[in-house]
Amino acid sequence: MLNGPHLSLDSDFQGLDANAIQSKVQLPDNFQQLKSNLLSGDFKNVTESRPVTHCLTRSIHSVVDSKKSSRFCEMVRKLRSGRWLGATGKPITDVVNIGVGGSDLGPQMGAFALKEFADDSPLHSLNVHFVSSMDGGQLYAVLPIVDPETTLFVIASKSFGTIDTFANVDTVREWIQPTLTESQWLAEHVIGVSSNAKKMIDYGIPAAHQLTFGEGVGGRYSLWSAIGLSIALATGVRVFERMLQGAEAMDKHFVEAPVAENIPVLMALYGVYNRQQRGINNLAILPYDGRLRMLPSYLQQLDMESNGKSAGYNGKAIEYATGPIIWGGFGPNGQHAFFQHLHQGYDEFAADFIIVLSRKAPGFEAPVAESLAKQQRLAVANALAHRRLMWFGSDNGEPRNHYPGGHPSNALVMDELTPESFGALLAAYEHKVFTQGVIWQINSFDQPGVEKGKKIAIDVLDAIEKGTQLEGTDESTAQLIAATQKQK
Amino acid sequence: MLNGPHLSLDSDFQGLDANAIQSKVQLPDNFQQLKSNLLSGDFKNVTESRPVTHCLTRSIHSVVDSKKSSRFCEMVRKLRSGRWLGATGKPITDVVNIGVGGSDLGPQMGAFALKEFADDSPLHSLNVHFVSSMDGGQLYAVLPIVDPETTLFVIASKSFGTIDTFANVDTVREWIQPTLTESQWLAEHVIGVSSNAKKMIDYGIPAAHQLTFGEGVGGRYSLWSAIGLSIALATGVRVFERMLQGAEAMDKHFVEAPVAENIPVLMALYGVYNRQQRGINNLAILPYDGRLRMLPSYLQQLDMESNGKSAGYNGKAIEYATGPIIWGGFGPNGQHAFFQHLHQGYDEFAADFIIVLSRKAPGFEAPVAESLAKQQRLAVANALAHRRLMWFGSDNGEPRNHYPGGHPSNALVMDELTPESFGALLAAYEHKVFTQGVIWQINSFDQPGVEKGKKIAIDVLDAIEKGTQLEGTDESTAQLIAATQKQK
Repeated sequence: MLNGPHLSLDSDFQGLDANAIQSKVQLPDNFQQLKSNLLSGDFKNVTESRPVTHCLTRSIHSVVDSKKSSRFCEMVRKLRSGRWLGATGKPITDVVNIGVGGSDLGPQMGAFALKEFADDSPLHSLNVHFVSSMDGGQLYAVLPIVDPETTLFVIASKSFGTIDTFANVDTVREWIQPTLTESQWLAEHVIGVSSNAKKMIDYGIPAAHQLTFGEGVGGRYSLWSAIGLSIALATGVRVFERMLQGAEAMDKHFVEAPVAENIPVLMALYGVYNRQQRGINNLAILPYDGRLRMLPSYLQQLDMESNGKSAGYNGKAIEYATGPIIWGGFGPNGQHAFFQHLHQGYDEFAADFIIVLSRKAPGFEAPVAESLAKQQRLAVANALAHRRLMWFGSDNGEPRNHYPGGHPSNALVMDELTPESFGALLAAYEHKVFTQGVIWQINSFDQPGVEKGKKIAIDVLDAIEKGTQLEGTDESTAQLIAATQKQK
Repeated sequence: MLNGPHLSLDSDFQGLDANAIQSKVQLPDNFQQLKSNLLSGDFKNVTESRPVTHCLTRSIHSVVDSKKSSRFCEMVRKLRSGRWLGATGKPITDVVNIGVGGSDLGPQMGAFALKEFADDSPLHSLNVHFVSSMDGGQLYAVLPIVDPETTLFVIASKSFGTIDTFANVDTVREWIQPTLTESQWLAEHVIGVSSNAKKMIDYGIPAAHQLTFGEGVGGRYSLWSAIGLSIALATGVRVFERMLQGAEAMDKHFVEAPVAENIPVLMALYGVYNRQQRGINNLAILPYDGRLRMLPSYLQQLDMESNGKSAGYNGKAIEYATGPIIWGGFGPNGQHAFFQHLHQGYDEFAADFIIVLSRKAPGFEAPVAESLAKQQRLAVANALAHRRLMWFGSDNGEPRNHYPGGHPSNALVMDELTPESFGALLAAYEHKVFTQGVIWQINSFDQPGVEKGKKIAIDVLDAIEKGTQLEGTDESTAQLIAATQKQK
């Protein structure tokens, strides 16, 4: 087992040791330089013509710059202590984060995973809710349980123009009407987080309620920046800072440790080998801790949006396999669901087991905390059992009880789930994805594949709402547009 | 587009029409008989030597039998109206459903998806929470927000011995101690739902607080039975009943409609063709409605636990591909996450778009309801756009803007998400899985692949807790057991 900062990697069940894997997969000659460039904010996102700067946001003092960052901290303290008053003079009790993609997945995961470390005030409690999907299918469940007078909305959008986010905001603006005026709402009930300050000003958000972050921070890498506000609102500035420190420690490990002792680099090499030489097209993410239940969705974005590409950074088409399909679900529940298939199905897969060895459960009385600690060990035992069975298999001669095994996996091990180990875990995956990107010679920091669909969607929406003709459409789409109009 | 009860199927983007697909994939000669057997409760689960009876639970009057079912309804009415009092005389305000797998996924999804149809009492509100994972990583977030005096626990376990569930219950028993005695808690704060009445009696649950369901109802098919209690608690008996009616309507369609007009059968045929003749090993589930956000996880269990098998119902090993990997996430958010890979990644995939054409948003003021309806149409436009792009592709000559297309998909279309259409949708997937199971000649109703891991886990747990020697263990597992003990 390889021990890194706040995180260990056991790759015994990959079937190749750290030396053998280096002979199978080639790192670029200038890899050390590329890593240094990433950490110093000098790595180039070639297609978007800007440097990649998310690693610079790991320090709390650089959430943007020291002046704005103190604004971040002050907002958190004011809201968590009950000193932020709504337009009618009542303290804010609920925050609703409206964002999507990177403005939702990371903040939501962090706010839930680290909740038990929160430095809650005994005098005031702040509930943090998350709303993302453009159809309002989450918003509809939050509005009935909050009050316009005591609710603040964090509008989190890098471009401050994401149609999904503003579709939800538009509904909120209808919902506040019987209680607040638009100007009351904008004055005291909204915080904007964006890299486009101008658009926040145009929208009418007071300067003091704006947080910005750099253009070079990609959405899927943005929870370390001001986008992480809702994590800090749910847990406090200190917890957020500890998360950043964990990520920074992993940065240092990534740039300094030799390959054979480098957790993200080894994860990358095993991944490339499983993908290209073993021909496995998917990676199951199996966190054995309910606090990490959103990790598979988070890593779906981080990995598939970064490396699910078929053009090189030189602009040419590439023919080899790149990033795999990322899927999974939290392990203990997966055992009662899709593990049947993992053990006895037809398909090849690779897996990452994320294992938390112990928990202290601060905030609970001793007997409850002890019981939770025992539950944690039960989960560890199950993780170790299934991981072993997936690799070694089992056979009693009956096809029905045959477990073929041979499925490679990593175990990513934390002594405890703390803000530091959580930060280190996410940074390790970021650097794994980066390393795979440079091996595959792709730009991991753009997302051209999301553009075309957006454009077609606008045309389809016009066809639905205004009856405009959709150019060159097919019969199936035309029929569904007509069916939607009929329901209006 | 094929219109069925509460649900339509558009399979234009499968590339083969309903006649062509029948010439590619063979249904068994006795298929009509097999379908009738399933609906009448006479289909045999051969390896577990019992009939498959979940279709019999679609009727509210047969949740088990009329006598016990009126108990189900009475419990719901009493809890939802505030007439169920805890041991200290206070009305129950919170229900925590503790279960895992089928005792969690279906109830949790249904309770969230159908919330807006709830017949809430103006005088009392009941919050329903769900706790599953064995490590307590969900329980820990619920306990601090509920009160032992006003909280009732639904212990949902088919065997009433699921270790995951009772690990959570054990922690709850510690948590109530300062407030309630064990006998107070058992007398007024627990409902048991199981097919093992004896174990519920042994556990000390009063007879009047027990609900049972048949042994022949598999866990992943159990939300229609008494296991669905938490759906009814969140929404009311009438909503639950309407969900059952929707499923019943789909049953009738499945058994009566000719193949070319049969939604579940066509879904099954396209799935088999994509799997075996196109060689696609995965199916992405993409609901374009936030209310259905749990559908991918639910279908992971339904499909992968049923058909992720490599032994035939005759007990012999089979060599061909069976059920695919089921993954996905709700579509609007996927567009900001893994759709980059779907559009431009290396991998083949098939997809199901679940599209809800309109919403009425009952319970909101008109301007808010209208805004939500508009949001729904925005989601429809996006679904149609991406589905079209995935099939037809797009090419402007630059590799970076190349969308290869050719990815087959279904559109499952509902005019509205209602209890009926929700029930019909789930029943359609059940029957798709059933049809694929009989084509592949496997038993879709057992789950032998979950057994071995359970046994190894018990041994590993003993090694961690008691230091017993684990027979024939490997170095990696031994090291992780030692690391866990060190953290104790």
